[in-house]
Amino acid sequence: MTLEQLASKLQEEIKQVAKNEKIDSAKLKKLFLDGRVVIPFNPKHSPKPLGIGEKLGVKINANIGASPDYANIDEEIEKAKTAVKYKTDALMDLSIGGNIDDIRRKILKTVSVPVGTVPIYQAGMEYTKKGAVVDMSEDDIFNSIEKHAKDGVDFMTVHCGVTKESVEKLKKQKRITGVVSRGGAFLVAWIIHNQKENPLYKNYDYLLELANEYSFTLSLGDGLRPGCIADASDKPQMQELIILGELVERARKKGAQVMVEGPGHIPLNQIEANVRMEKTICRNAPFYVLGPLVTDIAPGYDHIVGAIGGALAAYYGADFLCYVTPTEHLSLPTVDDVRDGVIASKIAAHSADIARGKNLDMDLSMANARRNLNWDEQFKHCLDPEKARMIREKRKPSFEDTCSMCGSLCAIKMVKKYLEEN
Amino acid sequence: MTLEQLASKLQEEIKQVAKNEKIDSAKLKKLFLDGRVVIPFNPKHSPKPLGIGEKLGVKINANIGASPDYANIDEEIEKAKTAVKYKTDALMDLSIGGNIDDIRRKILKTVSVPVGTVPIYQAGMEYTKKGAVVDMSEDDIFNSIEKHAKDGVDFMTVHCGVTKESVEKLKKQKRITGVVSRGGAFLVAWIIHNQKENPLYKNYDYLLELANEYSFTLSLGDGLRPGCIADASDKPQMQELIILGELVERARKKGAQVMVEGPGHIPLNQIEANVRMEKTICRNAPFYVLGPLVTDIAPGYDHIVGAIGGALAAYYGADFLCYVTPTEHLSLPTVDDVRDGVIASKIAAHSADIARGKNLDMDLSMANARRNLNWDEQFKHCLDPEKARMIREKRKPSFEDTCSMCGSLCAIKMVKKYLEEN
Repeated sequence: MTLEQLASKLQEEIKQVAKNEKIDSAKLKKLFLDGRVVIPFNPKHSPKPLGIGEKLGVKINANIGASPDYANIDEEIEKAKTAVKYKTDALMDLSIGGNIDDIRRKILKTVSVPVGTVPIYQAGMEYTKKGAVVDMSEDDIFNSIEKHAKDGVDFMTVHCGVTKESVEKLKKQKRITGVVSRGGAFLVAWIIHNQKENPLYKNYDYLLELANEYSFTLSLGDGLRPGCIADASDKPQMQELIILGELVERARKKGAQVMVEGPGHIPLNQIEANVRMEKTICRNAPFYVLGPLVTDIAPGYDHIVGAIGGALAAYYGADFLCYVTPTEHLSLPTVDDVRDGVIASKIAAHSADIARGKNLDMDLSMANARRNLNWDEQFKHCLDPEKARMIREKRKPSFEDTCSMCGSLCAIKMVKKYLEEN
Repeated sequence: MTLEQLASKLQEEIKQVAKNEKIDSAKLKKLFLDGRVVIPFNPKHSPKPLGIGEKLGVKINANIGASPDYANIDEEIEKAKTAVKYKTDALMDLSIGGNIDDIRRKILKTVSVPVGTVPIYQAGMEYTKKGAVVDMSEDDIFNSIEKHAKDGVDFMTVHCGVTKESVEKLKKQKRITGVVSRGGAFLVAWIIHNQKENPLYKNYDYLLELANEYSFTLSLGDGLRPGCIADASDKPQMQELIILGELVERARKKGAQVMVEGPGHIPLNQIEANVRMEKTICRNAPFYVLGPLVTDIAPGYDHIVGAIGGALAAYYGADFLCYVTPTEHLSLPTVDDVRDGVIASKIAAHSADIARGKNLDMDLSMANARRNLNWDEQFKHCLDPEKARMIREKRKPSFEDTCSMCGSLCAIKMVKKYLEEN
């Protein structure tokens, strides 16, 4: 398969994305062929076509999924619906608890945004019941991938860059927090225990064949992403990125869509460098970042920490932001945490968009509604109209056109009177 | 008075600030004499000495204060205590409702962080009862300033840059949201109605005498700050900044401490320019920004919007971040909103600090606690230990050392076992 052939298969989707993004369809096709834009689309799921990459609006993803301690399928479906309600662009099911197959299939049925998974979680999880994660076989990993593909998963995180070579770099580095990626940890443990190469790396060509056969997009995982500010942008992280850069080129040659995942915990002054490095080393493959988190010390508020990092990363060229919820580092998120995570990430993505000249009309509509002290109109343009209404209702003003902050001393009202009428 | 004389009066405070900031006391004195650092300190209040400016940690401010619709002195005191509990560096009382004198005096008694006010609010407010704000006299404005100074207010916002000249620029600009600064609006209205120059500008030398006499710091207000993304960095805003730059030099010559306030609604791509412009035009006077807010469309979440802008502004050199609460643009904040605002702003300030090589030990302590899966130690290093504990308690894990997100699949635990023990 070639990307040209894939583009023919996806021509309707390319047209639709071009329309949504208000860019020329031929130009989008060129970006797609160059691997600068991906459109995760598994025909078995057939999501609303979503473009991720250069020249397009910044997209966001919400992670949901049951854990061994909290495995309630209804709650996960509620999270999926909530994430979509607050306009996540994509959803990942990271379930490692409950009936993983059922949850994934029900999510795929429920939402029409692209759905991603990390198949190795399921492969590994089954072995924690009967022994240890490191006992899983190469076949277990690939069977899990194939099962997810058959179910209609649109994109999959595969930690192909955790290799013997990068594990050696990791051993030398003496990191503070070692490995914090779940999939990365599985593979580091597996490589060390079995003294074998990562099956996802060794059999990468087979993985690409599966991607071709089932039409899913690869998201090359950053298994060695830093887990704290002190570990940011170190040798193991960069070593993995170099390997991912090679794998991007191999994927493109075989006509598979591919994006690259990035950190993680990164201080503000290293975000630009991380984006630029991914874009050069991975030849402009769409960059999908987790956060980034710009400090370690705010558990309970990591959605804010991630929004700061995400806004900056997107401004410098990251294409796809994975949200972080307030419960990150503490517990599995609730439905409310999912909402807070999606909104924080949406703020980050939108702030980067307007800084890059996109979607400015949304802010302009809000500004005009404010100028006119038209509250219904203001609510219409809010990311979360319900919450905005609720706050205003809770502390009503005595003058209907103002708010309870300034009341009769409303600056806008005063200036209207004197500046515009004089 | 000269800044040299003031430095002699404040020599103990300079020493204390140098100690807190871990910088050489002689170096700090030089920064103080150059006007690059201010230490707002009114002996009548005698707050814990706080340095704001170049080479120092980024500081944050929380705005509280009653409004005509919600004027509960106890609630405002509760807000003051909450802001201090979550480690705000300074507090501004912006009351325009209730017994303004009582509230201010009680806040000054309650907190030992520097307290700021905007005296023109009180002057104006008294006239809304008997007529219109524009009826206040020059004396009313200066009497209000003197009263606040006598009460011990450490710094005061004075909108000296809203002049006939800048109002002319404003008229020509046809902004979307006109003027959104309360004090700025008072003065624009006053200038137009009375066809006279801004008393704070015309009598600036007298204002400097008051600052000398009572030892308060001037915070030159940005009355013409943009109220929406579309109005950002426009001519009226820059015109005001130029005037403020002149006033900074006049203040320094008379030995008055001065900082400069900045926007406001600014897209991500204009934040660096705004900081650089302030630093050149105002000759490195400490820059005190409100937010900045990087999008207009997130009422209910403006603390997050402000944290994004604040982190970036501080990273580029802003010295003092005024928080924004979730209720900004909607209503007067509650006590919980004050907490959320302070924490979001603290995250922004700290993220900029660590990006500039300061206070990295806090993140390192957290990272080590995480590596060791030591939860009590993790909570100790959280910005909000209570909330972090509560989240973890709400969704307890079955294994005490992990969390309910990954449980037995904890990456840190797995990698410890295989990477460190092999």
